[in-house]
Amino acid sequence: MKKLQIGIAGLGRLGKVHAKNIASKISNAELVAACSIVPEELEFAKTELGVNNTYSDFSEMLKNDDIDAVCIVTTSTEHCRQIEAALDAGKHVFSEKPLGTDVAQCKRAEAAVERHPELKFMLGFMRRYDKSYAYAKKLVDEGKIGTPYLVKATGIDPESAVQGAIRFAKTSGGIFLDMAIHDIDLCRWFLNSEAIEVYAMGSTFKHKEFKDAGDDETGVAVYKFANGAMGMIHVGRTAPYGYHVETEVVGTEGTIRISAVPEKNLATVYGTNGVCTECVGSFPERFAEAYLAEMEEFVDCVIHDKKPGVNVYDGTKSTAIGYATTEAWKTGKIIRI
Amino acid sequence: MKKLQIGIAGLGRLGKVHAKNIASKISNAELVAACSIVPEELEFAKTELGVNNTYSDFSEMLKNDDIDAVCIVTTSTEHCRQIEAALDAGKHVFSEKPLGTDVAQCKRAEAAVERHPELKFMLGFMRRYDKSYAYAKKLVDEGKIGTPYLVKATGIDPESAVQGAIRFAKTSGGIFLDMAIHDIDLCRWFLNSEAIEVYAMGSTFKHKEFKDAGDDETGVAVYKFANGAMGMIHVGRTAPYGYHVETEVVGTEGTIRISAVPEKNLATVYGTNGVCTECVGSFPERFAEAYLAEMEEFVDCVIHDKKPGVNVYDGTKSTAIGYATTEAWKTGKIIRI
Amino acid sequence: MKKLQIGIAGLGRLGKVHAKNIASKISNAELVAACSIVPEELEFAKTELGVNNTYSDFSEMLKNDDIDAVCIVTTSTEHCRQIEAALDAGKHVFSEKPLGTDVAQCKRAEAAVERHPELKFMLGFMRRYDKSYAYAKKLVDEGKIGTPYLVKATGIDPESAVQGAIRFAKTSGGIFLDMAIHDIDLCRWFLNSEAIEVYAMGSTFKHKEFKDAGDDETGVAVYKFANGAMGMIHVGRTAPYGYHVETEVVGTEGTIRISAVPEKNLATVYGTNGVCTECVGSFPERFAEAYLAEMEEFVDCVIHDKKPGVNVYDGTKSTAIGYATTEAWKTGKIIRI
Amino acid sequence: MKKLQIGIAGLGRLGKVHAKNIASKISNAELVAACSIVPEELEFAKTELGVNNTYSDFSEMLKNDDIDAVCIVTTSTEHCRQIEAALDAGKHVFSEKPLGTDVAQCKRAEAAVERHPELKFMLGFMRRYDKSYAYAKKLVDEGKIGTPYLVKATGIDPESAVQGAIRFAKTSGGIFLDMAIHDIDLCRWFLNSEAIEVYAMGSTFKHKEFKDAGDDETGVAVYKFANGAMGMIHVGRTAPYGYHVETEVVGTEGTIRISAVPEKNLATVYGTNGVCTECVGSFPERFAEAYLAEMEEFVDCVIHDKKPGVNVYDGTKSTAIGYATTEAWKTGKIIRI
Repeated sequence: MKKLQIGIAGLGRLGKVHAKNIASKISNAELVAACSIVPEELEFAKTELGVNNTYSDFSEMLKNDDIDAVCIVTTSTEHCRQIEAALDAGKHVFSEKPLGTDVAQCKRAEAAVERHPELKFMLGFMRRYDKSYAYAKKLVDEGKIGTPYLVKATGIDPESAVQGAIRFAKTSGGIFLDMAIHDIDLCRWFLNSEAIEVYAMGSTFKHKEFKDAGDDETGVAVYKFANGAMGMIHVGRTAPYGYHVETEVVGTEGTIRISAVPEKNLATVYGTNGVCTECVGSFPERFAEAYLAEMEEFVDCVIHDKKPGVNVYDGTKSTAIGYATTEAWKTGKIIRI
Repeated sequence: MKKLQIGIAGLGRLGKVHAKNIASKISNAELVAACSIVPEELEFAKTELGVNNTYSDFSEMLKNDDIDAVCIVTTSTEHCRQIEAALDAGKHVFSEKPLGTDVAQCKRAEAAVERHPELKFMLGFMRRYDKSYAYAKKLVDEGKIGTPYLVKATGIDPESAVQGAIRFAKTSGGIFLDMAIHDIDLCRWFLNSEAIEVYAMGSTFKHKEFKDAGDDETGVAVYKFANGAMGMIHVGRTAPYGYHVETEVVGTEGTIRISAVPEKNLATVYGTNGVCTECVGSFPERFAEAYLAEMEEFVDCVIHDKKPGVNVYDGTKSTAIGYATTEAWKTGKIIRI
Repeated sequence: MKKLQIGIAGLGRLGKVHAKNIASKISNAELVAACSIVPEELEFAKTELGVNNTYSDFSEMLKNDDIDAVCIVTTSTEHCRQIEAALDAGKHVFSEKPLGTDVAQCKRAEAAVERHPELKFMLGFMRRYDKSYAYAKKLVDEGKIGTPYLVKATGIDPESAVQGAIRFAKTSGGIFLDMAIHDIDLCRWFLNSEAIEVYAMGSTFKHKEFKDAGDDETGVAVYKFANGAMGMIHVGRTAPYGYHVETEVVGTEGTIRISAVPEKNLATVYGTNGVCTECVGSFPERFAEAYLAEMEEFVDCVIHDKKPGVNVYDGTKSTAIGYATTEAWKTGKIIRI
Repeated sequence: MKKLQIGIAGLGRLGKVHAKNIASKISNAELVAACSIVPEELEFAKTELGVNNTYSDFSEMLKNDDIDAVCIVTTSTEHCRQIEAALDAGKHVFSEKPLGTDVAQCKRAEAAVERHPELKFMLGFMRRYDKSYAYAKKLVDEGKIGTPYLVKATGIDPESAVQGAIRFAKTSGGIFLDMAIHDIDLCRWFLNSEAIEVYAMGSTFKHKEFKDAGDDETGVAVYKFANGAMGMIHVGRTAPYGYHVETEVVGTEGTIRISAVPEKNLATVYGTNGVCTECVGSFPERFAEAYLAEMEEFVDCVIHDKKPGVNVYDGTKSTAIGYATTEAWKTGKIIRI
C-alpha cells in the first residue's frame, strides 16, 4: 500500500508537532516536503526529519507532483489563500485553525472545497480527537445526559507563556479570536446547533500591556443558540498552574465535565502543600495524543475515501462567531450572529 | 450568663432548621417563642422543641418582653415589614434572605436598622459561614490568589425537588430572584466590589411548566463590577445527581474552587459504574453546619456586642442586582445597575 | 423531660472535646461534674463550662447521687478500674478507647458490664459514628459491594504532633497499641469476623528517638480473619500533610474507599504548586462531628433504653488483637490470636 | 540512518501490541520477522503488519542475518532459553516479563547477558516507562518525599477477564507469580533496596475455581527490605470497575500516590449514580503509552549504545522474590529471601 505523501507548510511550534507526527508516528504517511519562510525551520526538517524537498515558496511546493496532500500550519492570515491554492493544485488539505481571519476569506475556502469534491479537506479542531472529548461526545450522542442545553467552556493559557501573548497582542485579533475558537467549536459540536447571539466582556488585572494593545487578558462570553441552548466561555492567559482547558456539557439528565483538574499525569503528591496534582504546562503537552489522532484521521480519510469529522463549514462558522464575540466585547453590545 | 431569648417566625423547612439549632445546639440561646400562620408548625414547636409561647400574629409575639431577638424565616414578601416592626419593638433581628422583594422595601429595612444602632441585624447569607467558603475567603483576603477578578458561581437544585419549584414558578419572582441571590452575594463578597451591569438569559428544556409560568428552568448571567472584575452565574433546578453549589474565584495568582464535586461524604464507591461519589441531596444537607454557624454568630454578636458579618446593605444590594438580572433576562437587554 | 446528668473524668485534649459537647451541644444532657488530677483542668470546667462540682478523686465523684452517667477520658491504664467502679456505683458509662491495656483488665470490665444489665456501657470507637464510615457500613450491610473480604486501613498522625508522640514513646505500649486500635476495630466491624492471626513489622526512618525507646515510627500489619477475610493496616506518625485516616473495604462486587484525600474542606487551590487540597490537621478536626454523634448516641441509649452500637466485647477484642499485633512486631513471628 | 531490524517471537495479545508499535509507531525500527507456533498469528503479521519473514521455529528466525534484535513475547517458560539463544546468535534482546519461571533459568539468562557485553538486553517492566511512574520516580530521586520507606502496591485485574485467569489457574504458578511481578519490581525500584523477608496470604470469595486449582483470587504480601524499608502488595483478579493498578510511595517528607482512581480519561459524569469516573478496562489500555515508550527506549539503547533502564538482574531478583512470596503464601510461614 502506497503511503500518503505529505508536504507541510509552517514549522513553528505546532508545525513541528504535526511534522514529527507525520514523519515518524503515522505508518501510512510520509513527510516528503516542507515549506517555510524561516530558514532554520527548513534546516530542522532536513536534518531532524530527513525531508529532502524544502521550499520557501508555498506555490513552488504545490508544483511537486509527488505530494498528495499538504498540511498548513502557517500564520492564520495565510490559511484560506493556501487552502485554495493547494486544492486547485490537486492536493488534499489539512489546515490548522482558524480557517480564516475573516468570513469573506472563509467563504472563498468553502468555494474551493466545494469545487473539489474529489479532494479531502480537514480543519484542525483537534480537541474533537482528544480521547476525553471524543468519549464525552459519544456519551452525549448516546443520550447519556439527555438533551444537552448548556456548554461551559474554559481555556486558559499558562502565565509562563504570557510574554509571547503580550508580544502578539496588537496583531492577534484580540483574545476571543486568538483563544476562543476551540471553545466555540466545542459549544457548536456538543449542542449541535448554531449560535445566534453573543454578549462578551473582558478584563485585564495583571499585565496592562494587553489593555495598552487594545486587547484583554481575560474574556468572558455568553451565547444563545438557535435551538434555545446556551454557551458560556471563559478564556484567559495567566493561569499560574499551567494550561487549563475545561469543558462542561450540561444536559437534562446529567452533566459531563472534562478536565476539571488539568492533571499532568496520574501521580499525586501528599506533602506540605496538602494533596497536590501537577498540571499540564502547554497545549502540545495536553493535546499530544489528539494532534496525532486528528492527523491519523486525515490520512485515513484520504486513503480510504472517508469524510473527515471536521469540515470547512465548521471553520467558517467558528470564525463568524469569533468575530461576533469580538464585536460584542469591543462595543459592549449584544450582537446577533 | 443569661441566655439569649429568641422567638422564631416561620417554621417551614428552613424555619425548622433554625428552630432546632436555636433550641438545642446553641448553648447560649434559648427558643422561647414561635409564630406561624400554620397551626401544625406551632404544634411542632410545642411538642418537639418545648416552646411554650406560640403566636399566629407576628405583632403579638413582639409584645412579649421576654424575647430579646427574633429570627424571621417567613415568606420573602413579609421580611422587610417584620424586620422593621421587630426592630421598632426593640428586638435584635436575624432575617432569612432575601432582605426584600423589591428595593423600596429594602430601603425601609435599611432605615429601620439605621434608626436602631443599639440593636443587631443580620441577614442569612449562610454560605459565608460554610467552612469551605470561609476558608476560601480567608485565603483570598490573605492575597493567596492575588487580586480576584472573576467569580464563576453555580447553583443547581436537585431534580428530586423540581415539583415544588414548578408549583411556585408563577409567584417566585423568576429563577434569578429565587435562586441566584446567594450567588450574587458571593460575587460581591469575593470581589469586594459592586456589580454595575448585567446580561442574562434562560432556557427550559425539561419541564415546560416553567416556560408556561413565565419562568425558566435554567438561567445564565454575566456581570461587570465597578472595579473591572466580572461574574458568571449559572442557576438551575434539575440536577439529577443532587444539590450542586459550586463557586470559583479566579485571581491574578491563582484560583480557588469550592465544591466541584458536591460530595455527600468522604466515601467513594468503586463499582460497575466506575469510581463514584454520591452527592448531597438538598441545601439543608449541604449547609447544615453553615446554618448553625451563622446563628451562633448572630447570638454571639448580640451577647458580645459585635457586628455581624452580613449587614442590611448586603441585602439591598443583592436584591437590586437580582432585580436587574431579572430585567436583563426578561427584556434580553444589557441592564446598568 | 429530665436531662441526663453527666460527670466527666479527664479533661485533657480529648476530654475537653467531650466536655464541651456534653455541656453545650447535646440538648438532653448536662455536664454537672468533672474529675481530674490536674487543677487547671478543673478550673477550665468551672470557668469555661460552668461545672460546679469538681473532684480530684474519681471515687468521690461517684458518690454524687445527681450524676446519672460518667464519661471516662482518663489515661488508658485507669479505664477498666474506673468503668468497674462507676458501674458498681450505679452509673451509666461511656469510656474512651482503649477499653484496657491488657486483656485481663478488659475481662474485669466485661464482668462489671455483665453484672449490671440495667446500666448502659459504650466504648468510644467514634469512627463508627463518622458520617462517611457510617455511610460505608450501611452500603456494605446492604450488599452494595457483595461480600467484603479485605480491609485496608491507614492511620497516620501529623508530623506537627510528633514531639508529643516521642515524649510518650516509652510508655505508650508501642505504635500498634497506641495507634492501630481504631483500625483494628474498623476491620472487625466491616468484615464482621474476628482476626485469628497476625504478622507485623515496623520501621523508623525519621525520628530515631522512637527506635531508642523501643518503639517504631511506622507500623505495618496483616491479619487473617476467621471467615477467610484479610486485613492490612498501616499506621504512622509523620505525615507532613496533616492527619490521615483512610480506609478501604474491598468486596466481591465493589470497593468503598473512605477519605483517600483527607481534605480539610471543599475548597481546592489552583496555584503554582498545581491543584492542591489542604488536609485536616488533627483527629479532633477530622472527627469533630463523630465525637458529637457518638455522645448523642450514648445519651440517647441511656434515655431511651437502647443498646449502644459499640459494646464492651468490641473493646476486649480490639485490645487482644492490638496485643497480638505488638507481639508479632516485637518477635518477628506470626502470632495466632 | 539504518533502521533497527526487529524480529518478534509470540504474537498473542501483548505480542500484537509490541508488534504494532515496532511496525508502525517507532520511526527508527522496522518489524522484519515474526515467529509463532500459532499459524493465525503469523498470518496476522503478514497481512496486517506486512511482515514477510515468518517462522514457526525460533532458532530458524535467529539464522536470519538481517535481524538485529528480537522481541520475546512468548510463554514465560520459554523466555530464558530464547534469550540465551538469541544473544548467542548475536541479536539484541527485548524480553517480556517475567525473566524466567525459576531462579536457575534466570541465572542462565544472566550468564548469557554477561558473555555478550556487546549486545543490549532489556526486560519489559513497562510500568517504569509509564509517564506517571516515571514522574514519581523522578520526584523520589530528587528527594521530593525525603527517604522512601514504604511502598503500597495494588494490582487488580478486571472481573471481565476472570474466566481467562480461571482457565490458567492450574498452570499460572499462582497469583503472586502471575500478578505481583510488576508490583515487586516497583517496590525494589522506588525503595532502591532488596527484599529480605516476606509474609503472604490469600483468599477466594467469589470464584472457588481458583481454590480448586490450588490458587487464590486475591493475595496480600508484606516485605522487609535490606535497608529497613517495607512493602505491602495487594493483587487480585475481580475488580468490577476495570483494571486497577495503584501505587503509593511513602517517604519521610511526603507521599506520592499513582492512580488512586484508575480513570479511563478526563471526563467525569454527574448523573444519577453521583459523580462518576469510568475506569480503564485492561492493561493494554492503561499502559498503551508505556509499552510504546519502553520499546522506543530499547531501540534507542541499541542504536545509540546506551544502557537500558531495566537489566537482567532486575528480572532475576523479581523472580526470586515472586517465588519466596509464593512459598510464604503456600506454607503460611515467613520466608527469608
